[in-house]
Amino acid sequence: MNTREEAVALDSADPLRTLRDQFALPAQTIYLDGNSLGVAPRAAAQRAQTVIAAEWGESLIRSWNSAGWFALPRRLGNKLAPLIGAGENEVVITDTISVNLFKLLSAAVNLQNERDPKRRVIVSERSNFPSDLYIAQGLMAQLDRGYELRLVDDPSELPTAIDEDVAVAMITQVNYRTGYMHDMAALTKHIHDKGALALWDLAHSAGAVPVDLNGSGADFAVGCTYKYLNGGPGSPAFAWVPKRHQNEIVQPLSGWWGHRAPFEMDPTYAPDTGIGRFLCGTQGIVSMSLVECGLDVFLQTDMQAIRRKSQALCDLFIELVESRCDAFPLTLVTPRDQAQRGSHVSFEHPEGYAVMQALIARGVIGDYREPHVLRFGFTPLYTRFVDVWDAVETLRDVLATESWRAPEFMTRGAVT
Amino acid sequence: MNTREEAVALDSADPLRTLRDQFALPAQTIYLDGNSLGVAPRAAAQRAQTVIAAEWGESLIRSWNSAGWFALPRRLGNKLAPLIGAGENEVVITDTISVNLFKLLSAAVNLQNERDPKRRVIVSERSNFPSDLYIAQGLMAQLDRGYELRLVDDPSELPTAIDEDVAVAMITQVNYRTGYMHDMAALTKHIHDKGALALWDLAHSAGAVPVDLNGSGADFAVGCTYKYLNGGPGSPAFAWVPKRHQNEIVQPLSGWWGHRAPFEMDPTYAPDTGIGRFLCGTQGIVSMSLVECGLDVFLQTDMQAIRRKSQALCDLFIELVESRCDAFPLTLVTPRDQAQRGSHVSFEHPEGYAVMQALIARGVIGDYREPHVLRFGFTPLYTRFVDVWDAVETLRDVLATESWRAPEFMTRGAVT
Repeated sequence: MNTREEAVALDSADPLRTLRDQFALPAQTIYLDGNSLGVAPRAAAQRAQTVIAAEWGESLIRSWNSAGWFALPRRLGNKLAPLIGAGENEVVITDTISVNLFKLLSAAVNLQNERDPKRRVIVSERSNFPSDLYIAQGLMAQLDRGYELRLVDDPSELPTAIDEDVAVAMITQVNYRTGYMHDMAALTKHIHDKGALALWDLAHSAGAVPVDLNGSGADFAVGCTYKYLNGGPGSPAFAWVPKRHQNEIVQPLSGWWGHRAPFEMDPTYAPDTGIGRFLCGTQGIVSMSLVECGLDVFLQTDMQAIRRKSQALCDLFIELVESRCDAFPLTLVTPRDQAQRGSHVSFEHPEGYAVMQALIARGVIGDYREPHVLRFGFTPLYTRFVDVWDAVETLRDVLATESWRAPEFMTRGAVT
Repeated sequence: MNTREEAVALDSADPLRTLRDQFALPAQTIYLDGNSLGVAPRAAAQRAQTVIAAEWGESLIRSWNSAGWFALPRRLGNKLAPLIGAGENEVVITDTISVNLFKLLSAAVNLQNERDPKRRVIVSERSNFPSDLYIAQGLMAQLDRGYELRLVDDPSELPTAIDEDVAVAMITQVNYRTGYMHDMAALTKHIHDKGALALWDLAHSAGAVPVDLNGSGADFAVGCTYKYLNGGPGSPAFAWVPKRHQNEIVQPLSGWWGHRAPFEMDPTYAPDTGIGRFLCGTQGIVSMSLVECGLDVFLQTDMQAIRRKSQALCDLFIELVESRCDAFPLTLVTPRDQAQRGSHVSFEHPEGYAVMQALIARGVIGDYREPHVLRFGFTPLYTRFVDVWDAVETLRDVLATESWRAPEFMTRGAVT
């Protein structure tokens, strides 16, 4: 592509173009960080008012029934299910990814302990999102039964690392830093061939790429609603357990929301039948209610259409950075092959942090991840082709004028 | 008291009377269920709009720093601390009571395991809120090291049950059903004399009665923000760990928010120094932000003034029920002694569920707990003496006309 007009033409022909109107996009901003925090759906502000003024303010305690608060984790789980290839009553929206991972990794380890107790290895990638590794470490230390966390440095090492000693392979489908995407069906098949269980983290894939959990035969999954699903800052996570596993496992965070009859006040825990047993305590209803506003936008399209536009946006970004910023030391980190990447693209630059700060100061919002990585997320519900063009032009301008060297951008902050 | 005018006079003389204006109370309703879900502070609706439209909508990802989202669990924890006798940097607001209980009970058990590994008993009350018992059961099953949950049927049995075999006593200060309140200082001293650790659940005491965690020498505590603290439906819970314990224990839910340097993306967990290590995953920011609106009302008074009014409201309710409803089979469940109760009062009635449904239909909202218990919460920030008078008159009228026998009230719902 050589002109901005070509990008504008792609937007005019984009079948998803009207969905952008349903998001509250800030002015003067090109937001390429929906892989970290999705944009607010316009419906969210009104929904919050309804929950606060009518459901909480007027109906108060009665809303646990009348407004369906108590059923929200299951009802919204069912609304999310089609986006990830899950069945009815296989998903709950609740807690955080880390807490849900603790539940499901515990359940998986216990299930393997019954099936084949000599398996004492959990496999993952050293480049996995650190919290997933931390949770595995916390669980292993607590169990104190000689579990080992086997980490590989490159995805290509996974097939060898997953051998007959492995209890669970805990894999994040799309890498948060590089954007590399695993072939879920193929890797799950290998994991099963070796007798292990497959636990998938969908943080960077739910709402970004079509996921087929049941079709791929996966065993467990967790994921995030505040990235591509636009659920709001820190909105609750989800947990998926297929029907075949639901009633054969119990998880240790056995709070009252997972009890078979929570209002009978029985002093002994009895897990609910089905997906309900993966709930624990009372959920933050205002944050959870807003998740529905994001999910409702997905009902107006489908993941195949989203994937097509996502691939086109990512391809265009790579093409433009490599053609128009070729004078600068930018190295593509993300796989060039569409089938091997999610919906974000990362480039390394030796002074990546400062470059990203300069971009943000000019209204192009991506983010930075150690070490040296500039990360740009493409969210087909609201990102336009012209945004890609303008972002690359701004990047070129930043690099050409070296404004990123200005000292005010050199103080490193905490979160980006 | 013999006339409604006397109640009106008490309200006129009430030093807390103006605080009621800061709450969005529904019309035609006497709300005596703030011990289950507190009323919405008027500030909450506007605060939600600010978080959604400005912080999320406009500033997006930058709000993790600029709006202080990442610091919220600690900042709000410090705001809550004075209400429960906790010090600076000893409280975090995060997750749910059940999840926090799992963290702290695990930590307590591990700490005892280092000090005196033969101790294998966790003591609690059979009448404790069931989720607390469920969490202990889930943890014990997971540890699989021969722990025993020893439950007593009456608070008077606790001193004997807490012996040299006990690792942890897990006690809820105010019983959710009866309103019975333990003497935290005395019981903690006994627990320590026997070499055990004291873990307190403050669900029905934070914001309801003055609590002095450090003064009583307690070891750990969890609690709730959606009852007397008016944080909103399912708003996040809190965890308290005193400075003397913070760095000697690690909890198993070791997510990235509890890491010493969460943005360095180190693949190995290293717990934060201090209270931060009791955090786990990313929190629902909209729900958490609203907790501040409730806490801000408490800054305008103090727990001693709240306690005085609470005791007067409870005393008046007991007096009026016993004098004006003496023709009916109501039995006081809550201790008559002010020092032995929190801020709710329970009466048993053989058809308690139907009576409560009839009361609710007439706009007097208390709640029902199995078996037979009518529960009425008194929240001095917004409950008036005249509300107590009117509630008892309505109760008498319901019982006298036997309208609670009407068949439409006889279908038992899930949550009340």
